[in-house]
Amino acid sequence: MKRSEVKAAQQRASKLFEKVGIVLSPSELDHIEVASFGLGELETQGLELVTYVNTNRYCAKELVLFPHQTCPEHRHPSVEGEPGKMETFRCRYGKVFLYVEGTPTAAIQSIVPAGSEPYYTVFHEIVLHPGEQYTIPPDTLHWFQAGAEGAVVSEFSSTSRDEFDMFTDPRIQRMPVIIEDI
Amino acid sequence: MKRSEVKAAQQRASKLFEKVGIVLSPSELDHIEVASFGLGELETQGLELVTYVNTNRYCAKELVLFPHQTCPEHRHPSVEGEPGKMETFRCRYGKVFLYVEGTPTAAIQSIVPAGSEPYYTVFHEIVLHPGEQYTIPPDTLHWFQAGAEGAVVSEFSSTSRDEFDMFTDPRIQRMPVIIEDI
Repeated sequence: MKRSEVKAAQQRASKLFEKVGIVLSPSELDHIEVASFGLGELETQGLELVTYVNTNRYCAKELVLFPHQTCPEHRHPSVEGEPGKMETFRCRYGKVFLYVEGTPTAAIQSIVPAGSEPYYTVFHEIVLHPGEQYTIPPDTLHWFQAGAEGAVVSEFSSTSRDEFDMFTDPRIQRMPVIIEDI
Repeated sequence: MKRSEVKAAQQRASKLFEKVGIVLSPSELDHIEVASFGLGELETQGLELVTYVNTNRYCAKELVLFPHQTCPEHRHPSVEGEPGKMETFRCRYGKVFLYVEGTPTAAIQSIVPAGSEPYYTVFHEIVLHPGEQYTIPPDTLHWFQAGAEGAVVSEFSSTSRDEFDMFTDPRIQRMPVIIEDI
């Protein structure tokens, strides 16, 4: 991603945090993480996030999804003998369509990102409105998409080790590569 | 505590959550925990809270303090060989005066609850405004008090086992006893 694209996404996420009444420190605002997963289509497949704390025992993040933006399918495997990350998504604003392993929902409400259909394989739908939450067990495939207004989601979890996440799409690079604008 | 007192505190906490833009489910609103610690002076020493999730790996809660309300001094000891609870307090609204072990602050900004002075023994002050947070190591004495507007605090932590908390004040019962109104 180009630095300018990162900055624009950070500003857009900042505005949503402000609208929802979530206060971030100046340093947190400067370091909002913009994940495009190396796919080059941030609007469709991407995620903006702030990590409040990540210790060897727990982690807490605040996630932003722009309207219809999708976090691609992945799972959190066990690492060095410790069970994979367990995480609870709590919707704070907007609507989130979450998909996990289990009986596929007959007609899902979100749209799988065009051109990436082979990399979305679980379709058990959970819809989260503000004040609703869902806990994803370790090592379970999942993906999620915001509704038309975008979404803000609090994530409470065991320790995050994002670099070990296993994405279904082999093209994905979880850790960002930022290119300076020329 | 009398049931009517619990209900009144729940309603007051609900209004503050609403003011701050934190959405709770109907069930969460009905079950806001009101902790008076068996001291019978909720306005001075007490805490209102909602536990979003408490698994064997992590916990997340939302805390409310009424204006100048104090959560009494306590620590989280190790339980069955596991290190004591580690917790991160993030201020969402209002102001929080937090006290932990360490060099005592010369002139602290809060007032130790009258009549309970012997049970407040740590005075290293940390002031948290919205967007600021502090992580308390396991088994460390701490207490906290809200400023004049009250406070809303997100707590991210390892697993909660409130029944094992060690309070400095021997009169304290952590788990509530509710008396039906006659």
